[in-house]
Amino acid sequence: MPEYETALGASSLKDITLLGRDLAEDVMGSVGFGELAFWLATQRRPTPGETRVFEAVLAALADHGFTPTAIVSRLTLLSAPDSIQGALAAGLLGGGSRFLGVTEDCGRFLHAQLPADLPTDDAGWDELALAVVTAQREAQRFVPGLGHHVHKEGDPRTPRLFQIAAEENLYGPHLQLFAAIGRVHPRILGKTLPLNGAGVCGAALADLGLPLELLRGFALLARTAGLMGQLAEELRHPVGNEIFLSVDLHNRSVAPDPYEPPAQHSSDAEGGRHG
Amino acid sequence: MPEYETALGASSLKDITLLGRDLAEDVMGSVGFGELAFWLATQRRPTPGETRVFEAVLAALADHGFTPTAIVSRLTLLSAPDSIQGALAAGLLGGGSRFLGVTEDCGRFLHAQLPADLPTDDAGWDELALAVVTAQREAQRFVPGLGHHVHKEGDPRTPRLFQIAAEENLYGPHLQLFAAIGRVHPRILGKTLPLNGAGVCGAALADLGLPLELLRGFALLARTAGLMGQLAEELRHPVGNEIFLSVDLHNRSVAPDPYEPPAQHSSDAEGGRHG
Amino acid sequence: MPEYETALGASSLKDITLLGRDLAEDVMGSVGFGELAFWLATQRRPTPGETRVFEAVLAALADHGFTPTAIVSRLTLLSAPDSIQGALAAGLLGGGSRFLGVTEDCGRFLHAQLPADLPTDDAGWDELALAVVTAQREAQRFVPGLGHHVHKEGDPRTPRLFQIAAEENLYGPHLQLFAAIGRVHPRILGKTLPLNGAGVCGAALADLGLPLELLRGFALLARTAGLMGQLAEELRHPVGNEIFLSVDLHNRSVAPDPYEPPAQHSSDAEGGRHG
Amino acid sequence: MPEYETALGASSLKDITLLGRDLAEDVMGSVGFGELAFWLATQRRPTPGETRVFEAVLAALADHGFTPTAIVSRLTLLSAPDSIQGALAAGLLGGGSRFLGVTEDCGRFLHAQLPADLPTDDAGWDELALAVVTAQREAQRFVPGLGHHVHKEGDPRTPRLFQIAAEENLYGPHLQLFAAIGRVHPRILGKTLPLNGAGVCGAALADLGLPLELLRGFALLARTAGLMGQLAEELRHPVGNEIFLSVDLHNRSVAPDPYEPPAQHSSDAEGGRHG
Repeated sequence: MPEYETALGASSLKDITLLGRDLAEDVMGSVGFGELAFWLATQRRPTPGETRVFEAVLAALADHGFTPTAIVSRLTLLSAPDSIQGALAAGLLGGGSRFLGVTEDCGRFLHAQLPADLPTDDAGWDELALAVVTAQREAQRFVPGLGHHVHKEGDPRTPRLFQIAAEENLYGPHLQLFAAIGRVHPRILGKTLPLNGAGVCGAALADLGLPLELLRGFALLARTAGLMGQLAEELRHPVGNEIFLSVDLHNRSVAPDPYEPPAQHSSDAEGGRHG
Repeated sequence: MPEYETALGASSLKDITLLGRDLAEDVMGSVGFGELAFWLATQRRPTPGETRVFEAVLAALADHGFTPTAIVSRLTLLSAPDSIQGALAAGLLGGGSRFLGVTEDCGRFLHAQLPADLPTDDAGWDELALAVVTAQREAQRFVPGLGHHVHKEGDPRTPRLFQIAAEENLYGPHLQLFAAIGRVHPRILGKTLPLNGAGVCGAALADLGLPLELLRGFALLARTAGLMGQLAEELRHPVGNEIFLSVDLHNRSVAPDPYEPPAQHSSDAEGGRHG
Repeated sequence: MPEYETALGASSLKDITLLGRDLAEDVMGSVGFGELAFWLATQRRPTPGETRVFEAVLAALADHGFTPTAIVSRLTLLSAPDSIQGALAAGLLGGGSRFLGVTEDCGRFLHAQLPADLPTDDAGWDELALAVVTAQREAQRFVPGLGHHVHKEGDPRTPRLFQIAAEENLYGPHLQLFAAIGRVHPRILGKTLPLNGAGVCGAALADLGLPLELLRGFALLARTAGLMGQLAEELRHPVGNEIFLSVDLHNRSVAPDPYEPPAQHSSDAEGGRHG
Repeated sequence: MPEYETALGASSLKDITLLGRDLAEDVMGSVGFGELAFWLATQRRPTPGETRVFEAVLAALADHGFTPTAIVSRLTLLSAPDSIQGALAAGLLGGGSRFLGVTEDCGRFLHAQLPADLPTDDAGWDELALAVVTAQREAQRFVPGLGHHVHKEGDPRTPRLFQIAAEENLYGPHLQLFAAIGRVHPRILGKTLPLNGAGVCGAALADLGLPLELLRGFALLARTAGLMGQLAEELRHPVGNEIFLSVDLHNRSVAPDPYEPPAQHSSDAEGGRHG
């Protein structure tokens, strides 16, 4: 008979433990929600400074207004008002590569660039960043975390998160490299792009030592709180039906366009990803 | 052209606001994650006491080990490891009436029983609770929040949450009535049942003035942090494949059992719910 | 050690069976997809006539253009293009009480009204329908399946499905009662409403002897094919980003509106649903 | 004001069209569900032979017993019985790279290997297949569709689908190459592996000219019918609670294992996927 090990929640007749602690006595009333989320994900209790940086990241990522995920949650609530869990889940499903993925991509990217021996001063970081940006450019790939479609002159979250991390002595190599990329990239790209908020959040989460495979998950946790805000507002000041009608009433019926498969050896053929 | 109003996130070239505040300056670094979630859902900033009770509730509901939602998240990660958002969403979809719904049911139920003029002492609350339990019994309905399949002698979260709420002067009418139900129900039901943790959480959230329609949503927010813990543990100490095999290897193929529709006027016919 | 019984798929070294049949030899190549879905859900193989009515229902429910579910799937694909499963799942989550629920509500409602001894002629059905509509009106409840916001003079799917069911000798008591409701309701309601397509589909599915608890599921199955169409079109002729921008660019930031909980004994208090 | 074009469903006061056809008159009653799904996805009506191959693929992929997706759907129904859409959606979310992805991977892989000038006889296909398998081996990558953990001596679906495709004159280049891989791979790999059913389905779908980006979607459509079967069986012969208990009752509480981030320049660092 298999046994399933876990260090998370466990119950007996009289006790409930979580992460080896007594849930009622040692967690409830004394552990904040951000701290708890960090603890659950790493099985180690964060310091107050780590909690502050972590919660700053969650705040930065919680809500950005009418994003696709917010619209999706509101429309799902409109369509299935009996199922809050469905509206939340539908919203989270938009948390993929394009809108919420930058945080993870940036954290992973920066991590992959760090050498075993880290630079020890800004000049060293700039040198590393120059090599990184040059290599990406030569490979015709973007640098994750660079550029923003609205905040073209700078994303206000970025300097603030650098500052908070510095205050807590958590300005580690991922943030160092990210900052250096911000300094040097104009020399290679010929234009100045902002370091965006999603990217700096990925760098900060990586410096907190959180699992790189789960960085997107923290963005989703933050977004869950944001979607609760969206749903609460939708219940009181609904816009979902108006959004639906703005689309439905402006549909235009067109003739079918039969699909033709691409010719063999088309340029988007890339081989088996899992092959 | 319709306009869509929101008090949540908004961006311009240089600024990002959230709930009317400057996100970078006024929220990041100074607002905790539980506090932020409360604020987003109600559009009012909670007091420190409200935040403490709210975060105690979130801690109480975050993770209970190998619940169906946890198993579902782990199996979905096993099956689709490329999509953390899918694993989280799948887990949340189990947040329905049976496992996570008690919090909402209890909060709504208690609210519906409160008279315009509230009792002013324990005797008054006991009298109200006696009437409430008697009415439920006569209608052959359970009292939400009463009973637990493991903690038969008492759920340790319940007295702790009463205590925390009292410390913060947030022991309001929903908690009062719930406590009174705990005191009087043996007289009517003839046995002593524990007040369970999910129920007391619903009472506490209702006393915090949170929207009753969203109480399940707060349980889901708590659970999102718990599922992150489950997924993080699954990545390092996987049990998903063993769970899958424990089912798949013990399947037994049986002959089809052709479905017969129920006779007309069967007892489970209940009329159009939305009719 | 528990064993898990199933009559569905089973595999051994050389064989795969499904519903007790050899999948490769007896199912692949000879069983259509609608027929298979019916068989899987009921564990009995439908007749050709049953399959024709069932597939007519699936066609009627597959796609209705830019419904909330379609918009949600497209926006989720926009946001997470790496996860087709997420885009489909998000779309299905809108299949709740409001937009896709009528089929189930109508089937259940009609079933609940059928007496043990069924009428034997139109006059008898009309009498039953009069009683049913009168009772709903007195209870101030709608009759499921009656009325449509676009097809005010008649939903073209309704007479067609009646006709197909009649051709296949599958015009049973649920369709009989639904048709009678269509004939008599103006006498009680004082106006003529169309019998809508979602409703007649529910009646037809109930007459096919399908499980009432799963009628919504068949609407979701039909919708899955429709969502595949939506996603295929979105990949080639995208509108998702334009929909997103039409909302995001027309947002208007307003001041927070702090939530006030309802007074005690508000009229929407309804007691514990699962109490 | 933007307009949103679609060739799918459209409604006016009296009419409903789908793909430019009158839904009630031209689709309901005469178009099968598999045929309709193909038509929706490609906006062209398949021939009877194409429909037969397509439906054979859907049958092959519909259900494989207690897969993770089936278990997930059943547990979600257990936990949230009020939401069939949630149980279906949760099951589909497991349709990712590992369990349902082979169909898409194999179709894409084969397509990418096809030269502009196709071989004209088996010897030519074998030569191409030898080159393909050799290249994969040298790159230390698997060949998608090759191997099966149960059907080690051959997957019965594979020869059957080859046969059906041949009967319908739809044995195209993807199936040709896949068959050739089956013939030649032992020469390079030194052992004989079966061509699996998920792989041959991908080849057949690609030969039908279906969009490669959506091949996984067709597997999900098939699986939706399978999950309906799982849910229908769960409602009548439930195993979900027993599965849940088999895990929960065999949990073993262990001490937390604090997470240590990987060292810099760890071998799994791969750079920004979207960088």
